[in-house]
Amino acid sequence: MTRLSQIEPTSLKDSGTNMCRLITDLYPICRSITGAGYRQTMQRIKEIIPLTICEVPSGTEIFDWVVPKEWNVREAYVIGPSGRKIIDFRRHNLHLLQYSHAVRLKVTLSELKEHLYSLPEHPDWIPYRTSYYKENWGFCLSQKQMDSLEEGEYEVVIDASLKDGSLTYGEYFIQGETDEEVLLSCHCCHPSLCNDNLSGIAVISALAKALTPLTLRYSYRFLFIPGMIGSITWLARNESIVARIKHGLVVSGVGDLGQLHYKRSRRGDAEIDRAAEHVLKYSGRPYQIRDFSPYGYDERQYCSPGFNLAVGALTRTPHGQYPQYHTSADDLSFISPQSLTDSLMTYAAVLRVLEGNRRYRNLNPKCEARLGKRGLYRTVGGQIDQPLRELAMLWVLNLSDGVHTLLDIADRAGIPFDLVREAADALSACDLLEEIP
Amino acid sequence: MTRLSQIEPTSLKDSGTNMCRLITDLYPICRSITGAGYRQTMQRIKEIIPLTICEVPSGTEIFDWVVPKEWNVREAYVIGPSGRKIIDFRRHNLHLLQYSHAVRLKVTLSELKEHLYSLPEHPDWIPYRTSYYKENWGFCLSQKQMDSLEEGEYEVVIDASLKDGSLTYGEYFIQGETDEEVLLSCHCCHPSLCNDNLSGIAVISALAKALTPLTLRYSYRFLFIPGMIGSITWLARNESIVARIKHGLVVSGVGDLGQLHYKRSRRGDAEIDRAAEHVLKYSGRPYQIRDFSPYGYDERQYCSPGFNLAVGALTRTPHGQYPQYHTSADDLSFISPQSLTDSLMTYAAVLRVLEGNRRYRNLNPKCEARLGKRGLYRTVGGQIDQPLRELAMLWVLNLSDGVHTLLDIADRAGIPFDLVREAADALSACDLLEEIP
Amino acid sequence: MTRLSQIEPTSLKDSGTNMCRLITDLYPICRSITGAGYRQTMQRIKEIIPLTICEVPSGTEIFDWVVPKEWNVREAYVIGPSGRKIIDFRRHNLHLLQYSHAVRLKVTLSELKEHLYSLPEHPDWIPYRTSYYKENWGFCLSQKQMDSLEEGEYEVVIDASLKDGSLTYGEYFIQGETDEEVLLSCHCCHPSLCNDNLSGIAVISALAKALTPLTLRYSYRFLFIPGMIGSITWLARNESIVARIKHGLVVSGVGDLGQLHYKRSRRGDAEIDRAAEHVLKYSGRPYQIRDFSPYGYDERQYCSPGFNLAVGALTRTPHGQYPQYHTSADDLSFISPQSLTDSLMTYAAVLRVLEGNRRYRNLNPKCEARLGKRGLYRTVGGQIDQPLRELAMLWVLNLSDGVHTLLDIADRAGIPFDLVREAADALSACDLLEEIP
Repeated sequence: MTRLSQIEPTSLKDSGTNMCRLITDLYPICRSITGAGYRQTMQRIKEIIPLTICEVPSGTEIFDWVVPKEWNVREAYVIGPSGRKIIDFRRHNLHLLQYSHAVRLKVTLSELKEHLYSLPEHPDWIPYRTSYYKENWGFCLSQKQMDSLEEGEYEVVIDASLKDGSLTYGEYFIQGETDEEVLLSCHCCHPSLCNDNLSGIAVISALAKALTPLTLRYSYRFLFIPGMIGSITWLARNESIVARIKHGLVVSGVGDLGQLHYKRSRRGDAEIDRAAEHVLKYSGRPYQIRDFSPYGYDERQYCSPGFNLAVGALTRTPHGQYPQYHTSADDLSFISPQSLTDSLMTYAAVLRVLEGNRRYRNLNPKCEARLGKRGLYRTVGGQIDQPLRELAMLWVLNLSDGVHTLLDIADRAGIPFDLVREAADALSACDLLEEIP
Repeated sequence: MTRLSQIEPTSLKDSGTNMCRLITDLYPICRSITGAGYRQTMQRIKEIIPLTICEVPSGTEIFDWVVPKEWNVREAYVIGPSGRKIIDFRRHNLHLLQYSHAVRLKVTLSELKEHLYSLPEHPDWIPYRTSYYKENWGFCLSQKQMDSLEEGEYEVVIDASLKDGSLTYGEYFIQGETDEEVLLSCHCCHPSLCNDNLSGIAVISALAKALTPLTLRYSYRFLFIPGMIGSITWLARNESIVARIKHGLVVSGVGDLGQLHYKRSRRGDAEIDRAAEHVLKYSGRPYQIRDFSPYGYDERQYCSPGFNLAVGALTRTPHGQYPQYHTSADDLSFISPQSLTDSLMTYAAVLRVLEGNRRYRNLNPKCEARLGKRGLYRTVGGQIDQPLRELAMLWVLNLSDGVHTLLDIADRAGIPFDLVREAADALSACDLLEEIP
Repeated sequence: MTRLSQIEPTSLKDSGTNMCRLITDLYPICRSITGAGYRQTMQRIKEIIPLTICEVPSGTEIFDWVVPKEWNVREAYVIGPSGRKIIDFRRHNLHLLQYSHAVRLKVTLSELKEHLYSLPEHPDWIPYRTSYYKENWGFCLSQKQMDSLEEGEYEVVIDASLKDGSLTYGEYFIQGETDEEVLLSCHCCHPSLCNDNLSGIAVISALAKALTPLTLRYSYRFLFIPGMIGSITWLARNESIVARIKHGLVVSGVGDLGQLHYKRSRRGDAEIDRAAEHVLKYSGRPYQIRDFSPYGYDERQYCSPGFNLAVGALTRTPHGQYPQYHTSADDLSFISPQSLTDSLMTYAAVLRVLEGNRRYRNLNPKCEARLGKRGLYRTVGGQIDQPLRELAMLWVLNLSDGVHTLLDIADRAGIPFDLVREAADALSACDLLEEIP
């Protein structure tokens, strides 16, 4: 069977179209942290990978939290003094404050305004706002629309239900050669926001599909969860699995045109941190590394001190650092198939490092092995240049003392991991290296 | 009772006037490492804080040293060929080489010059010179005066006594909740030099007065000692106390207009080092950090390898790095009430960090605690900005694993200590944190 | 007897002439990794130091290698279509591919060209090429000569023998006060290349001669070996000695005009690494420090993981980083007596650090010792400047806690090692320090 290391990253280069199709399909659905739109989203992903869909009843205790009530909306609008529907949830999912309870009211303009949210600095955009954990109702609208509201009586209708039901999430597991796991987690709760996080959904769906037929060292677990409450729910229901998770990445904001950013795990020097940094370093393009902070997406939960998992976050422009973030401007025009493909290939490259990163012992540790007689070394000597392939072999032999991993060696040698991995393969084939279990 | 953390630094902002009054009173007194002037200085400080005054007899063995003889001067002058007093100790304390023995001599100009000290590079200033440990006599004078001396016979009179007596120092102790101590030490042996070190005397007197009424975690010990021989004497007489000293600062040169400098303890990364650096970093003004060196003031003794105490030095311009150092130009015009106040407030801020720096355990370590239900988190979500207060709480929860202190957390988070301390208080009040003893 | 520390580096300053004479004598000899020229080279070095010459039979197994056959050449030339000898080994040793087997052939130009090596980028220079481990024959020539070859029949004659014999190397050992050894190793296998490595031969011959009459803490072992195969041979035959080698340097490329470079041992922070870096730092001239890599000269073998010796390489321009490297342009005009002397003095300075680097315990660890009463401190106090000599003593006293070495102290204090060493001597003479065995 094919191993990840044998997959050419370029085999993924046509995935952009499929990823964009998925995003286009999911964009109009009204998702929240619970509800029908979330289920519909999972069903669409199931067309790509055989997702297991889990339902957790409202009220279930999950550490310091409880699974919230399920929220579903039939319609929501505001009728102005002129009798026209001036705000209508059907026109844009973002118009409704998420988790607004049912309301049918007549209010004055000033009473209404206490429940309106807009963005003065971007007068054309509708903001995204939520009130999951405090009962409230409200509408989001552009500043321009806000400014055009006239005095008079407004009719507010929110036909929504907020009642016991369940929280939905999707899970997909690939069994590898070992039970040690790599976790890939994306939040799926936002409606009509493309980069945050339909891009993440698209990238890990494509990644999961690509990994499925391969022979893999690690087992892979893909989580499609509502942000925050979803990772808390999953961790609370799967504490026995947590110890198997050796590496992980939170996947979000991977479709915009910005450069790649890696945010380290709380540990800071975990293997996933070093693998991601290595891949970005040799990507040939600008990138950013940031230290862990307890603010962001679900790495907050995976890296809480009671778990402290080796989970980082690989994104393009980090959340909150682009003006379109959490507004209607994070739409289909904000993401690009090239960026999605580049993100996917970068994720694959990081996993290729994890899969291939082993520790060896040089079986001929005293002086150098004679590579020439094994056909691994040029025969005419004296030249200035040393082929990088030979140099990689010398490094692997020199540092394979049972302590250094191939990634340690690649980093110390300043040579891309893939070349070091190939050198180790060539040396192993000559019985010059022994793998340390 | 009030805690240090509850004292607004601004409550100290009017201390400048009192500190300047003390300095003005002490300036004319002829101090040396022993003698009447030293005792008179201690009496004046006693008007501010209830100092204990200790006398240690000459000849007492203190490690490799002995307490020197006591030195007192009645008068000291030189009469020139014209019959005029051309140098007179009554005009300026610095005119007399400290510890000059009694002399009544007629000498030629060239014989006299072997006992004269001046500063060619600053022709108007009188240098400060000492000969504590080798019997000698001499006078210090300006280069201008030196240049004007004519050939002829000079009459030298030094009516001084150098005989068994005692070494004097002052000590003030505030008992805190624990017996662990913070040491604040200043040298008081220099006559008529304002920055070095009437400024130090003034700042720690004011600090001692401000701390006295407070509820304090640590006990505080203030030493008003002659430089070098005083700290050796104190350490030799108090070896049993030394183990209680957890943190300390040597206080000198805190009145000039230069920026603040912190010189690290020999340990280099002691809590006092990190606290002082944290405070300077968030001071909003330029500052300097220097590594320990075994040259300077009494940190030389506290940081000798047999003690290796966590004692740093917080000064303005370091000793020897300003031309006025150890000259008559270090006078009342060289220091400013604003600098003294700023130094005092900085010392208070460093102590506030020490007092408040604790280690906690997050009692809800798996996933984040639900801050919203405890009134600690905003209710509408989706915005880009995270209030720093909330971020501080997330950091405290994330890193309170029983290992990291609040200062560790503040440094890693890049958030001022006071905000982190407040976050820990708010979380403790909700039973989310447990203090590690 | 005289110690190394008592030798003024300037006593070596006239060594340049002798080193150049040796290089001039050795330049014309045809050396390879075995053979008569190698033996002749060892005999010439024996005129300077009483070298032991070792012969190891061809076929001896040495780790993953075997000692190769011995190679000797009587004559080697190519006669062109015109009947003239157009390439003749007698004119330049580099003309012949090293380890060419015997050949007597008539060939066409294109057949000949498969066995010719030239340097298009330097058309006047003859390259140096070898084929030690694969049977082959060939000639090296300038690109200009290559371009002038006409079509026609060529007669190739190589009258060489490649048969069982032995590998020769020279070894010189100086017994010191302890059996712990410093290794100095240079490769001697290259013919008619001055910087690489007649310069290394000259410098360590002169160094060995200078050390011989001294009282030395360490024993010193000088190896004059063929590159690569020589160090493998020596290590295979002397495994029981290896544990005694505490420090070592590979000596090559020490005669060109470039700045000094130190390449760290595989350990990276061994005492030899710190000593060499200290000396270069205080040399007052630009220099470079490079991390270890497993490509270079015999440090590859000494630093293989089964030995991992503390062996660095101190060179001028590193191998391969100058265009003349491994070409006929690395001739007598490429090296200078000044560079050779400077290299020699730098080696001596590094050894002086190793010889003098000890660890002491301050016998008066509580507070400072009273240096004045021992005549080690100025008697008049108050000045701004602290003599560096006094400062060095304060540092030695402060850090001599049984942990820090004098080199640690010099590095932390920012004071040249020699001054710190003198301070330790002065303090030891007053019984203030005790050496830690």
